[in-house]
Amino acid sequence: MQENEDRAHRETGADWVNQDARSGAPICGPVRYGMIGGGSGAFIGGVHRTAAAIAGNWQLVAGALSSTPDKARASGADIGLPDDRAYGSWMEMLERELLLPPHLRMEAVAIVTPNNVHAAPAIAAMEAGFDVIIDKPLADSLNAAHAISQAASRTGRRIAITHTYTGYGMVKQARDLIASGRFGKVRRVAVKYTQDWLSRAADLDNNKQAAWRVDPSQAGDAGAFGDIGTHAANLVEYVTGERITRLCAELTMLPGRRIDDDGAALFHLSGGGKGTLIASQVLVGDSNDLAISIYCDEAGLHWRQEEPTTLRVGYRDRPTEIWHAGAGRAYLSPATLAVQRTPGGHPEGYLEAFANIYRAFGEHVRGRRADGEPGFATIADALRGMEFLRASLESSRRGGSWVELVEDMSGEQR
Amino acid sequence: MQENEDRAHRETGADWVNQDARSGAPICGPVRYGMIGGGSGAFIGGVHRTAAAIAGNWQLVAGALSSTPDKARASGADIGLPDDRAYGSWMEMLERELLLPPHLRMEAVAIVTPNNVHAAPAIAAMEAGFDVIIDKPLADSLNAAHAISQAASRTGRRIAITHTYTGYGMVKQARDLIASGRFGKVRRVAVKYTQDWLSRAADLDNNKQAAWRVDPSQAGDAGAFGDIGTHAANLVEYVTGERITRLCAELTMLPGRRIDDDGAALFHLSGGGKGTLIASQVLVGDSNDLAISIYCDEAGLHWRQEEPTTLRVGYRDRPTEIWHAGAGRAYLSPATLAVQRTPGGHPEGYLEAFANIYRAFGEHVRGRRADGEPGFATIADALRGMEFLRASLESSRRGGSWVELVEDMSGEQR
Amino acid sequence: MQENEDRAHRETGADWVNQDARSGAPICGPVRYGMIGGGSGAFIGGVHRTAAAIAGNWQLVAGALSSTPDKARASGADIGLPDDRAYGSWMEMLERELLLPPHLRMEAVAIVTPNNVHAAPAIAAMEAGFDVIIDKPLADSLNAAHAISQAASRTGRRIAITHTYTGYGMVKQARDLIASGRFGKVRRVAVKYTQDWLSRAADLDNNKQAAWRVDPSQAGDAGAFGDIGTHAANLVEYVTGERITRLCAELTMLPGRRIDDDGAALFHLSGGGKGTLIASQVLVGDSNDLAISIYCDEAGLHWRQEEPTTLRVGYRDRPTEIWHAGAGRAYLSPATLAVQRTPGGHPEGYLEAFANIYRAFGEHVRGRRADGEPGFATIADALRGMEFLRASLESSRRGGSWVELVEDMSGEQR
Amino acid sequence: MQENEDRAHRETGADWVNQDARSGAPICGPVRYGMIGGGSGAFIGGVHRTAAAIAGNWQLVAGALSSTPDKARASGADIGLPDDRAYGSWMEMLERELLLPPHLRMEAVAIVTPNNVHAAPAIAAMEAGFDVIIDKPLADSLNAAHAISQAASRTGRRIAITHTYTGYGMVKQARDLIASGRFGKVRRVAVKYTQDWLSRAADLDNNKQAAWRVDPSQAGDAGAFGDIGTHAANLVEYVTGERITRLCAELTMLPGRRIDDDGAALFHLSGGGKGTLIASQVLVGDSNDLAISIYCDEAGLHWRQEEPTTLRVGYRDRPTEIWHAGAGRAYLSPATLAVQRTPGGHPEGYLEAFANIYRAFGEHVRGRRADGEPGFATIADALRGMEFLRASLESSRRGGSWVELVEDMSGEQR
Repeated sequence: MQENEDRAHRETGADWVNQDARSGAPICGPVRYGMIGGGSGAFIGGVHRTAAAIAGNWQLVAGALSSTPDKARASGADIGLPDDRAYGSWMEMLERELLLPPHLRMEAVAIVTPNNVHAAPAIAAMEAGFDVIIDKPLADSLNAAHAISQAASRTGRRIAITHTYTGYGMVKQARDLIASGRFGKVRRVAVKYTQDWLSRAADLDNNKQAAWRVDPSQAGDAGAFGDIGTHAANLVEYVTGERITRLCAELTMLPGRRIDDDGAALFHLSGGGKGTLIASQVLVGDSNDLAISIYCDEAGLHWRQEEPTTLRVGYRDRPTEIWHAGAGRAYLSPATLAVQRTPGGHPEGYLEAFANIYRAFGEHVRGRRADGEPGFATIADALRGMEFLRASLESSRRGGSWVELVEDMSGEQR
Repeated sequence: MQENEDRAHRETGADWVNQDARSGAPICGPVRYGMIGGGSGAFIGGVHRTAAAIAGNWQLVAGALSSTPDKARASGADIGLPDDRAYGSWMEMLERELLLPPHLRMEAVAIVTPNNVHAAPAIAAMEAGFDVIIDKPLADSLNAAHAISQAASRTGRRIAITHTYTGYGMVKQARDLIASGRFGKVRRVAVKYTQDWLSRAADLDNNKQAAWRVDPSQAGDAGAFGDIGTHAANLVEYVTGERITRLCAELTMLPGRRIDDDGAALFHLSGGGKGTLIASQVLVGDSNDLAISIYCDEAGLHWRQEEPTTLRVGYRDRPTEIWHAGAGRAYLSPATLAVQRTPGGHPEGYLEAFANIYRAFGEHVRGRRADGEPGFATIADALRGMEFLRASLESSRRGGSWVELVEDMSGEQR
Repeated sequence: MQENEDRAHRETGADWVNQDARSGAPICGPVRYGMIGGGSGAFIGGVHRTAAAIAGNWQLVAGALSSTPDKARASGADIGLPDDRAYGSWMEMLERELLLPPHLRMEAVAIVTPNNVHAAPAIAAMEAGFDVIIDKPLADSLNAAHAISQAASRTGRRIAITHTYTGYGMVKQARDLIASGRFGKVRRVAVKYTQDWLSRAADLDNNKQAAWRVDPSQAGDAGAFGDIGTHAANLVEYVTGERITRLCAELTMLPGRRIDDDGAALFHLSGGGKGTLIASQVLVGDSNDLAISIYCDEAGLHWRQEEPTTLRVGYRDRPTEIWHAGAGRAYLSPATLAVQRTPGGHPEGYLEAFANIYRAFGEHVRGRRADGEPGFATIADALRGMEFLRASLESSRRGGSWVELVEDMSGEQR
Repeated sequence: MQENEDRAHRETGADWVNQDARSGAPICGPVRYGMIGGGSGAFIGGVHRTAAAIAGNWQLVAGALSSTPDKARASGADIGLPDDRAYGSWMEMLERELLLPPHLRMEAVAIVTPNNVHAAPAIAAMEAGFDVIIDKPLADSLNAAHAISQAASRTGRRIAITHTYTGYGMVKQARDLIASGRFGKVRRVAVKYTQDWLSRAADLDNNKQAAWRVDPSQAGDAGAFGDIGTHAANLVEYVTGERITRLCAELTMLPGRRIDDDGAALFHLSGGGKGTLIASQVLVGDSNDLAISIYCDEAGLHWRQEEPTTLRVGYRDRPTEIWHAGAGRAYLSPATLAVQRTPGGHPEGYLEAFANIYRAFGEHVRGRRADGEPGFATIADALRGMEFLRASLESSRRGGSWVELVEDMSGEQR
């Protein structure tokens, strides 16, 4: 199998050992974290834990895995946490961990609860001095999102939101190619994120994931546009390096539903380009079909999450190119190479992309990654997602009128 | 190589010989036709002639191939027309052909001139008793289109518009699958028709095709939406069996251009489904990328013109299916099988799809094809295209507002 | 639609008019031909006629379409031949056509009979002064093949064998890329030609095509290796520009069959490269799956007949390239561009590839095409195919031993 | 995101806790293991560790990561091992671990050294009472392989060989479909495993991986056939459930090399089917292109490692099917579902396939997995691979003669 000497350190996690960015004290080993949510029966909690394990620079040391104390403790045992760190509630976890000596105490929390239970633990954790990694979307309402944002500013704690798809290497490659300017300006973007797991009325019954996601009191006002439309919008802004400035959206839903399960939008980009976006959870045959085409003056770039290891680049006057992921491929950009774990032809997938988010945020927590894009979605990115959602809902309520997005609600710079 | 006995007649053109549908008189052999336009340097004229040759039930007997008499006559000689039937103008051709005895005289004309030279020869030909096959779009203005339509009604002559893409077998298969109702209702359609041949400012210079297509006085008010957006809209209505009822469109163009070269729309279907449409001639890397996805309650159907021999059908609970074109495939619908010239695995393409339009119209001229869809775009279909274009232009002029389409401008039934 | 001025002549067939290569007399119009075989119920006859029609430089003027006189005459009427040129036998056709004045008389014959009825009419036609285009394989035995070859040498008549697949533009592109030397030497070839139409025992019943192809007395000693293995071998030699020098083959068949329906071989190329070949008519799910990979020192080239408009070129240190067919693509080689009828994105298929063979042989008959590869398979190519078949059968009979191919049985140079 | 309640336990690793299969004593938590080899600069060691982390039922507690004691200890620190368990040699590790109390002591070793350093540590580890997981191929010679096999029999320790590719879910799906008998017997297999990382002479210089792999004293007699041909052969036998009984192989190498870097074979299967195999490390443009087609009486199955989440199944009389990986897909077999970590559309790749091997062997170590195929390659499988290699080398040395494989060299039953 192919080998690159310089890959060895990354693969073996050899760069954990460094100094704390603030105190200068040596910090050894992985970031110790506690998980909030993610007990038995939850999907995304397991994904976070596996991603952290692949990343190699995180160590799960505590958990408050359910809102039901008994279940929380039982779930902790299930995943191998010591009894005394499988807590009955996240409040208990925050309190008790603070009593531990710093070198044992958790350093960060991962929040994988439903959207309406993001803000309270996130804010409390930051107030208690912990960094936070939080499943997207940031919150169930703009108010809650702003409260999280303000807490982060106030406490100076670090925060990441897991927009998984920007963790893929070939997405970074597309971003870098566009940012290089070699292809000129962005003319048009076509993005879709379509699934079919809610395609039938009965999908709302007996499905924990489905239940809260289509319940406005838990998921917020938005369904598919909140759940996956925000991923699509985030991907657009990440890859183009531009902002969605205005849009015209129409959201719909199957009979009997209260929030959107399907919709589409036209949008404008800050650089003058135009775009279309489709987000749906009722389009039969599409499993998790996030796909984006970005047409620039001199090339068209195409990436699809279900075939994540290739990036197609079309030209007018020469053959189409297929760029392949893989450690050691000299033609890939540094940011892309930095997230390749395996040589070309050994496909990496969703869990590795997720791990790249953890890896980058772990390095950030350790005071690394001074240069370039952070490698994870920031609070500013997440607020952009909330604003995209607000504008989409407002546009749709107004019959598909054009609505402007407020550029930066937080006052922070991206 | 595989064989189907019942394909032999179609392949050999053995069914030419039949009776005139009106007079009952026996009519032998292929439909004799004259071509208007399509001289040296024109692309689409050659396509029409090759399509007619593949179809097998047409015979070119006359031509007025250019608006310049000398060039018209020279072009006629070039393609092997006898001198006395290579006319200097279409007026001359109509007059002179009428002087020939009926069994030698041309029976129909094929009009392959720029959009603004469609109406006059079409109307005159029908007045003179000739049937007409005409390159799309029908005309450069709604007025001209209505004039053609009225002439057809008045004279009772037959007329076809060459919306090529509905000639593909797997498009017919998609239509038949949806029409069968087995997949339920149409929820969402995503269609794109994108090219890159006008992606640069210089593409307007020294290119006969480009020149008239981006000149409002020749092409009408619409550029890309007229040239290829109408193909996309026609494909949507053909495959779904529904009508586009309202839309919200935004058309744009490169700096220095006078008519649209790029645009997108949201639209509604008469059955309640929603859709998105992208039409552009400036998206780099896309050659002739007409692609459609139709999501129904129980399946999603996907077809792409550049890979025309397959139809992908996605389901939620069972494997995705790839339906393959090919004579003798028992699982294909009769309408699909009727246009297969070769066994599975022997790909047919654009010219064969075009030939299917000719074949079907030729059979119609001969009084055949009583049942089912006509196999070519009718005047009603063409008027729907004009209305799609009008609504798109109006919506875009009004800043992307929603505009209703008038259901049937002609008073005729589809 | 894109346009290339310089394509007009080719499309319109404007270059028919030229001089006879031998007499210098002006020859106008298409090559007049008569067909032997190809009556009702035959597949390949219709393909030849359509191909000739697409080519544009051929005109069907006579036929002896069946070995049964009544059927021959009826089939002639079916396809629109005048009664006096729908002959009852090929002997009659040769005799009677010679009585016509030269400017009306047919100039060539197309032979589309079963393999065991190739030699007699081919030799007689050449003796009578007609050129010959003949469906592959050349004959049912080496003796018959040599007899045809000797007749061609003796009479000086022109002869072509329709190895269809070398008519595809992207096959020519692969050949030209390899011949340019830019990729170095050929290391390894993997070719397959697999079908499934004989996958069941019952496929031998009630199928005219199947019946003769699996009957040694009509098809010769070889089944699948003769029918399609020779296509694969021809493709290898055409694309690489090398010869298969030795091979080790194992041919098999389903129970109850008398000749091979499946087999594989290892082989050596004259340039030192190695290869594998699979030919089968019993591999379920493969319709007409001719596919070839040619690995050179610096690139790997991949082409598949069922997706004929692209050529994939893989490199070690840069992105994979997809080369696209299409008139006007500046990056394609002249030989490839010369057979493009439509712009990029308007797919051409099997019938157009077949038409390219007719077109090239028609130009050869008219004394054109002095340079480059002939554009059709020559008698030397066909004899190579016979030799490949002989060696494969001998190797298989000897339990998969290695067998040398005689380099050139005819004494002629390729 | 889709959810399956019953996936939760697997994902969270909740089934670690069980009884020791022999003593009946309760065994909690993951299998504690030590690694031999895999220090800085080695690729495959990092893959094993990440795979074990994803599997969730393994815990790295010790290591002897290099044959150089200082480097071994430094590498141990690099990957976070405590100083006292980062040993200077594997002998030291075995000795010292035995001194630890059983509940802390490692239970198994993972051997990731060059092929010629497999046997000694494997045998010593088993003699010392440890289970063994060993990178493929089992050893550098038949003698060494037999010695390992005999040690396993003698000691009763468990042993697994990491033939990664059988860990992919869709490979298991293909196996289960064929084993079900619904498609009839296997007629023909075409398998290839091709890479390009040794395509240039210079690839032997300055590349640790390359150096030992092309050195007979370290890798054994076989190069590409040993390194990846054995993977291909193992995949054939795994998927078909049959054995390769005889073969005819030709191995070659670039000028200046001592062992094969490229080759191909014809082979026979125990059920009567035939096959072709290509294994090469010099085919440019192929990164890690393991691909297999298995043609049965009623279907053809196709899988490719670089697109591992789909299995294509072709039929003669109905549409081709694309089977998709994904937790919760009811149409997949139990063995396939058991290795799905993510819902459909969230691609899993090479590391997850590798993790499946670890997961299964970990369960075996814990006395689980009583039913079905073991989920990892056994010593018998590995000996089959050695025999495949022996026969290939012998056939090639004898000029491509047919050679029989000894069915079972070990006397054990598969």
